[in-house]
Amino acid sequence: MIPRDHPRYRSLVTREHLAECARSGVVSWEGLISHGRGEAFDYLLGEKTCDSAHRAARTAAALLRTARHPVISVNGNTAALAAREIALLQKASGALVEVNLFHRTQERVAQIETVLRDAGADVFSGEAERLLPLSHDRAWCRREGMYSADVVLVPLEDGDRCGVLVEMGKKVIAIDLNPLSRTARTATLTIVDEVTRALPLIAAACTALTDGECRDLVTTLDNRAFLRDAQDEMTRRLTHALD
Amino acid sequence: MIPRDHPRYRSLVTREHLAECARSGVVSWEGLISHGRGEAFDYLLGEKTCDSAHRAARTAAALLRTARHPVISVNGNTAALAAREIALLQKASGALVEVNLFHRTQERVAQIETVLRDAGADVFSGEAERLLPLSHDRAWCRREGMYSADVVLVPLEDGDRCGVLVEMGKKVIAIDLNPLSRTARTATLTIVDEVTRALPLIAAACTALTDGECRDLVTTLDNRAFLRDAQDEMTRRLTHALD
Repeated sequence: MIPRDHPRYRSLVTREHLAECARSGVVSWEGLISHGRGEAFDYLLGEKTCDSAHRAARTAAALLRTARHPVISVNGNTAALAAREIALLQKASGALVEVNLFHRTQERVAQIETVLRDAGADVFSGEAERLLPLSHDRAWCRREGMYSADVVLVPLEDGDRCGVLVEMGKKVIAIDLNPLSRTARTATLTIVDEVTRALPLIAAACTALTDGECRDLVTTLDNRAFLRDAQDEMTRRLTHALD
Repeated sequence: MIPRDHPRYRSLVTREHLAECARSGVVSWEGLISHGRGEAFDYLLGEKTCDSAHRAARTAAALLRTARHPVISVNGNTAALAAREIALLQKASGALVEVNLFHRTQERVAQIETVLRDAGADVFSGEAERLLPLSHDRAWCRREGMYSADVVLVPLEDGDRCGVLVEMGKKVIAIDLNPLSRTARTATLTIVDEVTRALPLIAAACTALTDGECRDLVTTLDNRAFLRDAQDEMTRRLTHALD
């Protein structure tokens, strides 16, 4: 349907896949709009991982490796875009994979869990309770899952959950293409990169890093510097784009 | 449902309206993604019309006023967001209004024509033919409409049609929040602004400009300068956001 000679072929195929996932209910309509917002910022990154995001991904791996109880929180967009990458990161990191949704219905949770399991992930499900101090449905999580986690990876977060998790004393790793977002600025560590590029980098680093390197990366973590670098990269591109 | 005092009230109401239009079929699911992209760039503009966009809108009016056969091309997002503004611009400019869709079905064309007519536009419909040299469904247009136009206004274009229209010798006016997009860069004139802000500015200028002013604006048109100004505006905002 999309002509292969279209200069934006890959991006259009991704959009079509997300639209399909919206029709089936895995992705919410707000999820489609969020994806578009992400596309704009990725455009400003030149649709590639910038140097500081490489370093941030290694730091994320270090946080996961040194965690007592790491959890990867998955929403509809993440499952639709990167179920396979989530499964591979789980294998590399040993983290729990748990579904947590803003637009939550039992049916959507089950659908998304199926997408993840089909991609090879071992999904932590079971009884959810309203455990996080949030007024919306992201409050629902599992006592032995996200609630007890010391490190939580939240790809494609777009709400106020990140701040709440940080206030609960958890280390939060966000993957967010917008370096100005509340999530990007409240997370312990933000990887400003596209999710299907960032997740394999974290997985690779989980395997490659030595224990000493992990300790060093964790103690020198400076999220503001990561955000500043991503912003500089976008500014550079915006400035020179017409040259 | 959305509290009126919410700081993002307008943006949230617009999203909800677009989602409704997606459910009814007027807006494609991909259209929601495009909207998100626009939102991100509008954020970088501070959600207001920058000085150069004001000048670009006046220039657009001059192009429409001096055209032999101006056509406004409308897609699903434009109809959903700005049907009334399109109708008012038609009245001010005398341009034909024609529906042209990337995700084209007879039913969607008819639905969007109804939205436009309900808003007071006089829609040019009738038999479409595959007349533009494009491999996708945007190739469909009317011989006496867009195909014969000398000036075409394409709000919210997101494909490769703009280049094709320019190659056919037409003057293309784009409204595009992304100053780096192919459309923005290949159009004869790009207004880097949100569509419901830009269209009334063009309509007002259609009425206000003298013939002499129209000629001056057309002969001094420098799209690169317009794009550069919009880009500078966004760069300024991005640079100072973390300060």
